[in-house]
Amino acid sequence: MPNYKLTLSYEGTRYKGWQRQGNTAGTVQEKLETVLGRILEQTVELAASGRTDAGVHARMQVCSFRAETEFSPAALLRELRRYLPEDIGAVALEEAPPRFHARLSCRKKTYLYRIWNSPLPNVFSRRFQHRVPEALDLAAMEQAAALLCGEHDFASFCSLKNSKKSTVRELRSIQIRREGDELQIFFTGDGFLYNMVRILTGTLLEVGLGLRRAEDMPRILEAKDRLQAGPTAPASGLTLWEVRY
Amino acid sequence: MPNYKLTLSYEGTRYKGWQRQGNTAGTVQEKLETVLGRILEQTVELAASGRTDAGVHARMQVCSFRAETEFSPAALLRELRRYLPEDIGAVALEEAPPRFHARLSCRKKTYLYRIWNSPLPNVFSRRFQHRVPEALDLAAMEQAAALLCGEHDFASFCSLKNSKKSTVRELRSIQIRREGDELQIFFTGDGFLYNMVRILTGTLLEVGLGLRRAEDMPRILEAKDRLQAGPTAPASGLTLWEVRY
Repeated sequence: MPNYKLTLSYEGTRYKGWQRQGNTAGTVQEKLETVLGRILEQTVELAASGRTDAGVHARMQVCSFRAETEFSPAALLRELRRYLPEDIGAVALEEAPPRFHARLSCRKKTYLYRIWNSPLPNVFSRRFQHRVPEALDLAAMEQAAALLCGEHDFASFCSLKNSKKSTVRELRSIQIRREGDELQIFFTGDGFLYNMVRILTGTLLEVGLGLRRAEDMPRILEAKDRLQAGPTAPASGLTLWEVRY
Repeated sequence: MPNYKLTLSYEGTRYKGWQRQGNTAGTVQEKLETVLGRILEQTVELAASGRTDAGVHARMQVCSFRAETEFSPAALLRELRRYLPEDIGAVALEEAPPRFHARLSCRKKTYLYRIWNSPLPNVFSRRFQHRVPEALDLAAMEQAAALLCGEHDFASFCSLKNSKKSTVRELRSIQIRREGDELQIFFTGDGFLYNMVRILTGTLLEVGLGLRRAEDMPRILEAKDRLQAGPTAPASGLTLWEVRY
């Protein structure tokens, strides 16, 4: 059966994350599989580059699926745009090599965490930002970020640890950028553990607020204990930014 | 009684516009007056620079009100930020000169109409943009815009004409700017008629799509007939951008 690569964006606000959960409605995967299934008149199973948590957004998410169809990719893309709800955008659709798999073939992912760092309200981007009105020490946050990059056991930065699976990941870079009143933190790596980006962000924010020292990062990593790291930052601030193959 | 000037922003999506309508809930004015009334323990009546229609947003709206209170402006601003819903932002509050009135003192207003001009979906700004996937002839739109500026009777660009009131306004400028896939049209004037910016936008879009010629603008103005102008562009694309005193 032909193999397809579908590139998506979605606003996660009203979804229970990416992954289908039994028969419960309300995930992005379930919505997409339903719409694709109706258009193609067959059961479609989607593989995504990775899950996103409830409320997390995606500027670029990639999925793959196999289907036998008369539709050309361009025609199928048009149908998808017609029937998907307005908070799920079908960006591109192409036929993929037979062995392409959105999760297994993924080489690199970038997440963006957006922080509205101002005492003023921002009614227009509140669904996509976490609000931190206090001043943040960017130099200290950058120092901490540098200590977190590289190949480490990130067990301290992972919720619901499954002791059988490796919690070693390579965090290639953390880039912190200020755009006016918005602070943007880009995380790039080969893969991320459950809640990892949000716990990294919560910890970096504590450093920025002076509640924790940058030099404590190696100790937190070594502890391999979730309780040593900072809080899990809210889902709404997080966006899956880019997926590379 | 002391006079106050309150600067706001709001996302209009879930509101029936600015202006209170009898006892019906759901307008921005009613929400604000209720919250202010509770904080100040007195009835507060707000005057705004102008109404915004149902679904229209405001990056900067200014209102004035009189109240006798022990709260300093800074303390009252803090209370407002605590109790307003997250789609209404209290930006600034200051004591105003006794004769200041948000509508009567207003000298100049700028509206922004945002158009997402791409076949690709944009899930993140869909609440603030009107989507036009077709190519637009910007040069023709600018030519039409130039013909609409100046002091004219804008009766053709006004819904629900009240024949007793003047429909003459001075449209100082229309600026059209492309930011990537977004087209931004800024309208600046001393005042605007009901639906005027949205009808101007709907007409300019017809010119951009080649459905109407730029040179027809003077004829439309002269006709003083709503049916001669283009459609009313959707409310969600419109934002009250700036109010000047």
